[in-house]
Amino acid sequence: MASTDADTDRRAEAAALDATDPLAHFRDRFVFDDPDLIYLDGNSLGRLPIATRQRLREAVDEWGGELIRGWHRWITLAREAGDALTGVPGPGGVPQPGGALEADPGEVIVADSTSVNLYKLAAAALDARPDRRVIVTDDDNFPTDRYILAGLAEQRGCELRLIETDIDDGVSLERVRATLDTQTALVSLSHVAYRSGALADMAAITAAAHEVGALTLWDLSHSAGSVPVPLRSAGVDLAVGCTYKYLNAGPGAPAFLYVRSELQAQLRQPIWGWFGQHDQFAMGPAYDPVDGIERFLVGTAPVLAIYAVLEGARLAAEAGIEAIAAKGRRLTAYAIELADEWLAPLGFTLATPRDPERRGSHVSLQHRQAWPACQALIAAGVIPDFRDPDRLRLGLPPLYTRFVDVHDGLARLRDLVAAGEHLAYPAERARVT
Amino acid sequence: MASTDADTDRRAEAAALDATDPLAHFRDRFVFDDPDLIYLDGNSLGRLPIATRQRLREAVDEWGGELIRGWHRWITLAREAGDALTGVPGPGGVPQPGGALEADPGEVIVADSTSVNLYKLAAAALDARPDRRVIVTDDDNFPTDRYILAGLAEQRGCELRLIETDIDDGVSLERVRATLDTQTALVSLSHVAYRSGALADMAAITAAAHEVGALTLWDLSHSAGSVPVPLRSAGVDLAVGCTYKYLNAGPGAPAFLYVRSELQAQLRQPIWGWFGQHDQFAMGPAYDPVDGIERFLVGTAPVLAIYAVLEGARLAAEAGIEAIAAKGRRLTAYAIELADEWLAPLGFTLATPRDPERRGSHVSLQHRQAWPACQALIAAGVIPDFRDPDRLRLGLPPLYTRFVDVHDGLARLRDLVAAGEHLAYPAERARVT
Repeated sequence: MASTDADTDRRAEAAALDATDPLAHFRDRFVFDDPDLIYLDGNSLGRLPIATRQRLREAVDEWGGELIRGWHRWITLAREAGDALTGVPGPGGVPQPGGALEADPGEVIVADSTSVNLYKLAAAALDARPDRRVIVTDDDNFPTDRYILAGLAEQRGCELRLIETDIDDGVSLERVRATLDTQTALVSLSHVAYRSGALADMAAITAAAHEVGALTLWDLSHSAGSVPVPLRSAGVDLAVGCTYKYLNAGPGAPAFLYVRSELQAQLRQPIWGWFGQHDQFAMGPAYDPVDGIERFLVGTAPVLAIYAVLEGARLAAEAGIEAIAAKGRRLTAYAIELADEWLAPLGFTLATPRDPERRGSHVSLQHRQAWPACQALIAAGVIPDFRDPDRLRLGLPPLYTRFVDVHDGLARLRDLVAAGEHLAYPAERARVT
Repeated sequence: MASTDADTDRRAEAAALDATDPLAHFRDRFVFDDPDLIYLDGNSLGRLPIATRQRLREAVDEWGGELIRGWHRWITLAREAGDALTGVPGPGGVPQPGGALEADPGEVIVADSTSVNLYKLAAAALDARPDRRVIVTDDDNFPTDRYILAGLAEQRGCELRLIETDIDDGVSLERVRATLDTQTALVSLSHVAYRSGALADMAAITAAAHEVGALTLWDLSHSAGSVPVPLRSAGVDLAVGCTYKYLNAGPGAPAFLYVRSELQAQLRQPIWGWFGQHDQFAMGPAYDPVDGIERFLVGTAPVLAIYAVLEGARLAAEAGIEAIAAKGRRLTAYAIELADEWLAPLGFTLATPRDPERRGSHVSLQHRQAWPACQALIAAGVIPDFRDPDRLRLGLPPLYTRFVDVHDGLARLRDLVAAGEHLAYPAERARVT
């Protein structure tokens, strides 16, 4: 199936969708070194915002010029970036229609990696439920989440109880309920599943956990900046998430953590670092943590990197999370429509919920030749992602993805698989032995 | 005491010392926005190397251009920066006379913060000595070290046993010995004391710990890049350290950790993150850590920031740690000489070991008006640091500090204290209540 008149019509349709996209102009806020590249992996690593490139240069110069005096400014940066994730504008900042996280200022802070933050908050939750011995997660949660929780469970002599998951449809409330009991200390799940993009019912699952007296800890890595995250209205206790996906803060950018304000002063953070200490520079004899969100800090804040989080958070808030999510639903629906039409006849199966209210901003397609198809697609100038066992994952970040990108990317995939071009590539990902 | 003929002679002496300084040209490798500023706090935050400014710009552009494909390069960066700290040159790199750390390639890796690394390695050490219940540190160790160890001790039901320290002279071997017994699982000390600059006898203390069967964990934050760190010859088990001081990697730069190669595969890292996982992208069901130093990684590597560590590590290795330390001994000796002559009559007392073999690259002076003197000195264009209770701390990083800087800085301190200018400032640091 090569290009046809029908294709021309289809592309005009896509261009028309772009022409009426209220977020289309946000694309101009990003760096595009190679305008021909179709990038469908911004859910692994988001693009570089132009403002961030400039801000990072200024931050480096600030280090060079201010030296140690820069800490007058930097000491509150982790908190400022956390607040920006909730939509609080900075001084003189652009008005923010909607921050990535529905939370109050002082409930979110930027620190460490997602994995380290998950460890800190999960350990704190276990200490807050000392008579309970069970941690609940799902058997298809993102690997680092499962490993971190397994390590804690082993060390504390707890049980890690796994909810059985449909890997294309996510975690169901019924299965969560069936796993919970009064021994459950903590329920830790991902809001958007990393492979399928399935969006969990945060409010219902949190309520179910609370019914049995458990705390909840959500991983927002694939939802922060792509769909609304109703931390406040769902009554979520704890959350962590990454900033290098839909928040565009750069490779290995620091993560964030959220602790509901009422819980902050009572939780025991396991890693007693000096950035959580009351009157830090008194350097007193005993650890005496502050009551607020800074209690969950550990070491010296990664200053340069936090500036990038601040820019990314403000950019998302400026677009507004509701508008971002609305475009995400349309982009993913469009991708599914083309996949049904073009790719299903070639053996691709949708591996993402069809209901737009039940997914994030990426779409996965199952195909037994997904690995070679992924390699061939990259060679053809389209970057998707591959996830074991046989999923081609298409990330469609609403701030810079166009409908024509979806069209062109999927048309190329269709054409190369139809022509058998992917068969020239190794059949499987090389395993590390 | 204002400027005199004797001062003129003294300054000519300092200039002569600079003229024969074999490392003098390394000053040209750093950014100096304000050539009149005398910066004596590079042991809190090192200066910006010119190469790092350039490298960080390139790294940001690499993110913007390579996007997810950058990980082909970035995935080994944490290890590469760790190896650079041991003096291994990069491909096509400048020959390295001596890396900051005496260790083998594959024994050091860049990750997380110093505090998080200390937590990981201390927890691993406790798990490796399950029948022992005592952690030994000193009562004047850097706050975050004491807090982290106290938190672990509380959680594990261990005793945190404190060595009594002379805050101006550091930890003595005799007092360490007196604290050790067969219940000691871990001895965790700083190599160079943060306030006094006292250099601990790493080899003798490590040997004493090993005699009772304990493991050793050294904090190298104030020694890495200032004095030789004989990890290999002293038989050190574990170490952590910071890169934003003498390694000039920027505010909040990621830290490093060292694990002796024979120990790596047998230690249990407490935070089971996916960057320590064997065949990470198989995303397998169970945590199965690699045998090597990557086992001690947790989350996604902070790519941009690691580039700065790589540059800083290479710059130190290019100068050579022996040459750096030799200049450090001369700079600190010169500062002590001037302090004896000019400042002792004004009530300043040396709070750093006099023996050049027993100190790092900073000098502390005790004075009951150290706080206001510090503020007045900053107003006079000289940046020192203050440390509780009443110490003025002068950091003299050998790569960019001149003898004339020491001269001019201390002459200004002398003049302003003699004139009582410091009395215009608050008598004490404002406490956070």
